[in-house]
Amino acid sequence: MKPWIYFDNAATSRHKPAGVYEAIEKFFREINCNPGRGAYSLALEAGRHILEARSLLAKFFNVPKPNQVIFTANITQALNTAIKGLLRPGDHVLTTGMEHNAVARPLTWMRDNCGIEFDAVPCSKEGLLEPGDVIKFARRNTKLLVSTHASNVTGTIIPITELGLIAKEREWFFVIDAAQTAGVLPVDFQAANADVLAFTGHKHLLGPMGTGGFCISLRAAEHAYPLVTGGTGSISDREYQPDFLPDKFESGTSNAPGIAGLAAGVNHLIQIGLEKIRAHELELTGYFRLGLEQIGAITVYGPGKPELATGTISINIAQRDNADLSFQLDDQFGIMTRPGLHCAPWAHQTISTFPGGTLRFSLGIYNTKDEIDFALKALKALRQT
Amino acid sequence: MKPWIYFDNAATSRHKPAGVYEAIEKFFREINCNPGRGAYSLALEAGRHILEARSLLAKFFNVPKPNQVIFTANITQALNTAIKGLLRPGDHVLTTGMEHNAVARPLTWMRDNCGIEFDAVPCSKEGLLEPGDVIKFARRNTKLLVSTHASNVTGTIIPITELGLIAKEREWFFVIDAAQTAGVLPVDFQAANADVLAFTGHKHLLGPMGTGGFCISLRAAEHAYPLVTGGTGSISDREYQPDFLPDKFESGTSNAPGIAGLAAGVNHLIQIGLEKIRAHELELTGYFRLGLEQIGAITVYGPGKPELATGTISINIAQRDNADLSFQLDDQFGIMTRPGLHCAPWAHQTISTFPGGTLRFSLGIYNTKDEIDFALKALKALRQT
Repeated sequence: MKPWIYFDNAATSRHKPAGVYEAIEKFFREINCNPGRGAYSLALEAGRHILEARSLLAKFFNVPKPNQVIFTANITQALNTAIKGLLRPGDHVLTTGMEHNAVARPLTWMRDNCGIEFDAVPCSKEGLLEPGDVIKFARRNTKLLVSTHASNVTGTIIPITELGLIAKEREWFFVIDAAQTAGVLPVDFQAANADVLAFTGHKHLLGPMGTGGFCISLRAAEHAYPLVTGGTGSISDREYQPDFLPDKFESGTSNAPGIAGLAAGVNHLIQIGLEKIRAHELELTGYFRLGLEQIGAITVYGPGKPELATGTISINIAQRDNADLSFQLDDQFGIMTRPGLHCAPWAHQTISTFPGGTLRFSLGIYNTKDEIDFALKALKALRQT
Repeated sequence: MKPWIYFDNAATSRHKPAGVYEAIEKFFREINCNPGRGAYSLALEAGRHILEARSLLAKFFNVPKPNQVIFTANITQALNTAIKGLLRPGDHVLTTGMEHNAVARPLTWMRDNCGIEFDAVPCSKEGLLEPGDVIKFARRNTKLLVSTHASNVTGTIIPITELGLIAKEREWFFVIDAAQTAGVLPVDFQAANADVLAFTGHKHLLGPMGTGGFCISLRAAEHAYPLVTGGTGSISDREYQPDFLPDKFESGTSNAPGIAGLAAGVNHLIQIGLEKIRAHELELTGYFRLGLEQIGAITVYGPGKPELATGTISINIAQRDNADLSFQLDDQFGIMTRPGLHCAPWAHQTISTFPGGTLRFSLGIYNTKDEIDFALKALKALRQT
């Protein structure tokens, strides 16, 4: 029987702490009322769950107030809300050459349909961004800087603190895509001078799919249009969207059981401690990279030093198709990886793997050295076939 | 100990069939991979779950093809996608005086910010719409007719088949908000000549909160802009949103476990049969209305005949504040209801209960005659206090 080794944590974390399932089940069995709608005790209890999750995430990301944490269906919706909500015709945006399509597609959409312009600041072949380069592309009408915190292709970390200072000095809005870092690296909303910090719930935060959101500064919250308008359970006498937080950006019924699960995931991370999680990731990544070098004829992308990246590693084996390799790893060895372009054509252009892509291994909290050993053996065997 | 009687099914269905929880747990434990991203067997298995749910809902709503079913976080996002995506500056919209804020707020937003106009066709005090009245408000630039299928305040059913014919004849797009009917009344996408049929997963379809979506005609799919753009796992070599279904309207990671639960809920409904569900609802509603009349001094809103409405009943007791009544029902009797305006100021204006609102009892598949008896006794007691 195959061992089912999961190396696709950049897509979603497959294994969750027991507490996550328990929190979801408990919500279903004991509450399962619509939060923020009725005023009966179980509806209030449901609302309390959401508020607790909001407070927890505010603390986790160092956001001044819980109502600055907004829940969405996923981080793509969060980034769309920020990008489409903050921009007006004539605005110019700066971004990086390592963005995911969750940033690239809204920007391209806005350029083609809503009269905005943008420049993607080039990164090195390792995916590294020189913060000073951003200034070279600044224009008088630059209004927004949007950057991933770490690439979903190579794991390369972008220096968001430096970017935040550049944005602050120029009074640009600063939006961070923390899809690949929240739950592994410390992500500090205030220290980064962020206006929007978009997060996904189901990756390294260990919550279920169907959760995500963003933290927002008061000045961004005031300026941004909501993407979705509708019932909020508040000021129901008016057909106008409320202008206060979080209601301005949260319409319709929340994924309340999912949010209960997300809170349990984040609590689990806090209990373990991000330092320990990061140390585990660095150890495995370093070990994996070393093993890959020893096999030979394998190109490993991203920065050579593990501390400059997350636990996501992209490779190619000379003369081999990465989709076929991914298939063989799954079929013969039960090892789950993701080949291709990873919804990030810009990043692959940057690292010169476009359009063929790479074979991606993305590690998570539950991966072990034994699994790395097994994967290395499998790659060795496949390289020789 | 209080019995916990739940009469807030118009907000969400609190009790779900066992199969719903089982499907979610099974997905979590056995699959829990990101659908439509990787190509390993468990990712494909996750994708198969989503496709099966799509096929099931296509069959349930009589939609030509599964890819015309789009999943969203909730019905509010579905209605926003339809309304904001289909309209262009200068367009005129027709809607009804019974709409929820999930329709009223996007329309108001578009009027104030995007140069559209709209008219809400007045309904009677019972919430009934005379289809012919719609034509009186038509303009040369009318492009869209959007209507609820049944009011979330009075349960009043709107004749969507007649509206669909009117829209078809004039080549307007026709959007239906089936939040209150999907799972109780037959909702036939093709028979209604609908362009968009928006549904919620967690009300009468018995799925979990965090699910919803819409069915879309090919002509509407071609014309509508997507609200959210980003990673779709498809044509990843391009920073442009795919133009094919369902990807055009589905970006970012789906609520895959929730969708598995939704499919189980819909399968349960199919097994019981909508006719039986509707008969149960009609029986309880008729019985409840009769009991309310017998108590006296209670105003019951909506049409007198139960067959003209769903199982949602709004009342007021003379001289009594409905918020206080709702509190007492919960506190003293464990009966969950929702007072106020129900995110539907227009509907309350129509039935002349604005801004005080009503006390709403919304029945569901699991309510019983005994529960109605208990509620009637409680109301009688409260009326006299």
